[in-house]
Amino acid sequence: MQNVRVVQEWLMTSDLSAVVIPSTDEFLNEFPPPSNRELAWATGFTGSTGVAVVTRNSAALFLDGRYLLQGKQETYGSNIEICPNRAPARRGWLYKNLATGSRLALESGKHPTHDVQAWRQLAAAVGSEVVLIDTGPANDLWNDNRPAMHAPKIVDYPLEYAGAPHLEKCQRLREHLNSNGYAALLVADPEDVSWLLNVRAHESALQTKVGEWHVVPVSSSRVLLPAEGPAQWFVDANQLAAEVRARADGIEILPPVALAAQLRKQAHSAVVALDLRQTPVALTAIVEEVGRVVDDNIVARSRWRKHPNEIEGARRAHIADATAVINFMAWLARTVPRERVSELDAARKLEALRRENPAYKGPSMPLMSASGPNGSLPHYVPSSRTDRLLNDHPIYWMDSGGQYLGGTTDNTIALAVKEPEPKHIAAHTAVLKGYIALATATVPVGIYGFALEVFARQPLWREGMDYATGTGHGVGNYMNIHEGPYLSREPSPLTTAPIEADMILTNEPGYYAVDDFGFRIESHMVSVAARFAGFLQFETLSRFPIDPQLVDFSRLTPTESRWLTDYHRAVWRDVGPHLDGPAFAWLRQLVAKYE
Amino acid sequence: MQNVRVVQEWLMTSDLSAVVIPSTDEFLNEFPPPSNRELAWATGFTGSTGVAVVTRNSAALFLDGRYLLQGKQETYGSNIEICPNRAPARRGWLYKNLATGSRLALESGKHPTHDVQAWRQLAAAVGSEVVLIDTGPANDLWNDNRPAMHAPKIVDYPLEYAGAPHLEKCQRLREHLNSNGYAALLVADPEDVSWLLNVRAHESALQTKVGEWHVVPVSSSRVLLPAEGPAQWFVDANQLAAEVRARADGIEILPPVALAAQLRKQAHSAVVALDLRQTPVALTAIVEEVGRVVDDNIVARSRWRKHPNEIEGARRAHIADATAVINFMAWLARTVPRERVSELDAARKLEALRRENPAYKGPSMPLMSASGPNGSLPHYVPSSRTDRLLNDHPIYWMDSGGQYLGGTTDNTIALAVKEPEPKHIAAHTAVLKGYIALATATVPVGIYGFALEVFARQPLWREGMDYATGTGHGVGNYMNIHEGPYLSREPSPLTTAPIEADMILTNEPGYYAVDDFGFRIESHMVSVAARFAGFLQFETLSRFPIDPQLVDFSRLTPTESRWLTDYHRAVWRDVGPHLDGPAFAWLRQLVAKYE
Repeated sequence: MQNVRVVQEWLMTSDLSAVVIPSTDEFLNEFPPPSNRELAWATGFTGSTGVAVVTRNSAALFLDGRYLLQGKQETYGSNIEICPNRAPARRGWLYKNLATGSRLALESGKHPTHDVQAWRQLAAAVGSEVVLIDTGPANDLWNDNRPAMHAPKIVDYPLEYAGAPHLEKCQRLREHLNSNGYAALLVADPEDVSWLLNVRAHESALQTKVGEWHVVPVSSSRVLLPAEGPAQWFVDANQLAAEVRARADGIEILPPVALAAQLRKQAHSAVVALDLRQTPVALTAIVEEVGRVVDDNIVARSRWRKHPNEIEGARRAHIADATAVINFMAWLARTVPRERVSELDAARKLEALRRENPAYKGPSMPLMSASGPNGSLPHYVPSSRTDRLLNDHPIYWMDSGGQYLGGTTDNTIALAVKEPEPKHIAAHTAVLKGYIALATATVPVGIYGFALEVFARQPLWREGMDYATGTGHGVGNYMNIHEGPYLSREPSPLTTAPIEADMILTNEPGYYAVDDFGFRIESHMVSVAARFAGFLQFETLSRFPIDPQLVDFSRLTPTESRWLTDYHRAVWRDVGPHLDGPAFAWLRQLVAKYE
Repeated sequence: MQNVRVVQEWLMTSDLSAVVIPSTDEFLNEFPPPSNRELAWATGFTGSTGVAVVTRNSAALFLDGRYLLQGKQETYGSNIEICPNRAPARRGWLYKNLATGSRLALESGKHPTHDVQAWRQLAAAVGSEVVLIDTGPANDLWNDNRPAMHAPKIVDYPLEYAGAPHLEKCQRLREHLNSNGYAALLVADPEDVSWLLNVRAHESALQTKVGEWHVVPVSSSRVLLPAEGPAQWFVDANQLAAEVRARADGIEILPPVALAAQLRKQAHSAVVALDLRQTPVALTAIVEEVGRVVDDNIVARSRWRKHPNEIEGARRAHIADATAVINFMAWLARTVPRERVSELDAARKLEALRRENPAYKGPSMPLMSASGPNGSLPHYVPSSRTDRLLNDHPIYWMDSGGQYLGGTTDNTIALAVKEPEPKHIAAHTAVLKGYIALATATVPVGIYGFALEVFARQPLWREGMDYATGTGHGVGNYMNIHEGPYLSREPSPLTTAPIEADMILTNEPGYYAVDDFGFRIESHMVSVAARFAGFLQFETLSRFPIDPQLVDFSRLTPTESRWLTDYHRAVWRDVGPHLDGPAFAWLRQLVAKYE
């Protein structure tokens, strides 16, 4: 379902030429609750990241590499153009579709300041201008079938998992403010708020296509932290669990509508620090009216470096999750030769196995389960319309994860569910070499993500292969699966964030051959001090095995073989004791192949 | 000699709090002619890149990694603080040294628009503002000992070397303007102008410390290219050689002072494309007053991709240059054991050997010649004060290059002039492995410099080593030795320029251990299509040998050994026939060690 025409009619009744519709909501959530998914409402595209521009007689959807095919499929039959989400493509499209002097509308509450600056430059380059509007088309027009707004309970996130007390975190930030002469810090990002105050909320984000949901445990609220005085938390007090109210001294709780006035007060003739990527331009504008803005992502940078308790929680979560995943892999190995198993069947099976663990709170992401050609879409999520039988193709992959108190997982297993062809083994071995290259890299403290990711690509490039997705990203602690730093090709504040010790990052090179097959291998690693001062290495936290049927052992270097042996010994040591009979035997046999 | 106090007195008599002094001049030349080296006049720092901020009672010099030590030495005894040239360091220093409400002055004709934007943000972040001024302190105060202004002859650069006729280049740019709806293109960068019009001029840039000079064959002039109509060249007609006047139909020659009026005329209610990094803010402001600016470095990007004639010219230049370099290496090998040879002696010897070739037009850069501890300064240029004897330390390196009609060279040889210690061999072998890794890399077309450079660092990182300099840069054709794309760590328009086929890039990893020793290996390579569509490989153009005394052959992989064998066969094949008896014998013996 898409509503481009509805948006175009809305434009006709306004003095606007075009409107930009983002995938985020007013909290700039990557996975907004269903009531706020305006991009999906407007275009039909259900992926997590993208942006549409709708003019009175044309429309484009700008998507990153992983979503280009999915975008084409989901908008099939419409006249929405699918374009790469890069500045030259955006400029080219605007140039063709906007007459000189056009007014391009952006809803001021839903676009990060950083993005508005970029749109202003693009608009100027094609002789048009950006107009900020208070409410966009969905606000006026999306009434039928709009899911209800959702106000989840906000609960305490215990110190056992969080590590540092929230008042200690506030104090450290105040020191940062004072040493830089900033009057206050606006914490506009719900993930920053949840980390800072040691709270979580279960925002269940509906995955629209398959009716599945996943857990986004962040509290959509905001904080204003003055350099002197208590933090102000702008949140609906009705959402707060009793234990959160009980430990809220040192924090002033205010209704969300009070933010504008407080922000204006703090900003008066002063400098307010905020993260331009995570703050809607409407809030930045309030500061700029009466004071000065400085771009500072200090909360995010603090959050990305995990406390020892958070790392320990992640370790436990990965062992718990691998127990379910290995049971699933063993089930697949004995079931696919005998029965029909579809992508959706497999997804349901793994979900059921995860639920056997009482610590499991729900999926951390839309579960991706892909057989053969479907697997060439890097972010393929199965639906009844696209569901394929695993029995029909050797290559199957599943990208999934769980939310556990203490940790968030998100791993991709790639398997041969029947005899693979040489090309499958060749591609998987090349990807595995890239995967091991990153897992075993030694890099200077402070390396940027765009430099680090090259390690995973190099073995693929040598054989003329590559992948259009990024190579990795930071992972939250019982939080969103995506956070900074990012390991991807384009420079941005998230790929130029220095990588330091104690960060949890994914390692996920892949191979995607359109209409043929595709897959990736994805694990989590934590950055640790290397034996040379000033350098980092990585320790893999995930504990799922690599399918030996897809490895050409003759092409591995001694270093690569040794890493595989050591890793599978760790899998056996940590997960073996938690497995039942058939899965135990299956894993023992598999691990033996790496000895 | 430094004039910080003079600048401070000048500030006292103004309403300004501080002034920013760049290393560039009004043409934003990397190597301004001696009359325009205001940063050296103000601070004493003679390196090619840096920027000073002088307040009424303090001063800082912001330098990139390669120049930090040199900056300290050259400002020794002054109260100038030496700081890394990065935004956080600049912000921190401004915060400490500027009172709120300070006025930070920038001379509008000498700062690229791009940099002014960055200074404005920095100033705002510390509660101050940028003030653009028409003339800076050097203009008012630098009278004594100021070298005379220099107006070199501007000569034709024959098609035999340049490849494409200038009118053809103009026509291709006009097509770019028309397809984007731009009214005109301002070509503000002298290198762009020289490439576009197929002209060269010999600006001899004095190397102040040693009285040496090097050739910067660019014409400090500007072009305005309308989408329709002839290119306008703003240049002193007296400088033009007869043959340039003769072939100047299709080009309108105007005096430099006419640029402002013509630019205002073209920009009226229209879009003018210009390169914000290469255009002083004074010119950008003229466009913004009456029309719109779009940032576009189309001329630079076109220039970086070399014509086959330019690549062929570079090949010939490298063979010619290697002939002198190998004669020099053979001379060193027989002379250092018997006689005292200083860094300056060696520099003079190589210069004399180059001059034996009538095609040699002069040095392409200040000649660097470094023994032992001096070599830990990546851009060390010897002077009588610092000159060391090569006889006193095993490790010697020389970074030098020549301007030849048709090509520009710039190579670094690293040698053991007596028995090296194991640590020297270990460091050199690690650097060599990085050097070969880059020379043999396969990468996708469009890779950015910051990703490509990781290849050269990886073998060093594995052993806890690194270097503070970049890994490479584009090289001009009978032009400046530095151009885009850059292979270095920080994202910038020059490191995010896509690398494509036919670019000439340096490959220069190194090792610099302060107070101990240092060196790099540097060659030129050209990017060529790889055997897989969409991928590039590199072909090394340089032809100097690698010193086998500094290679631990036991640590090389078969691929690395094979590359060294093939490369030295090419050296022998191409340069051997040009050598005299002793150098011929010396090279034959050396090449045999790689067989």
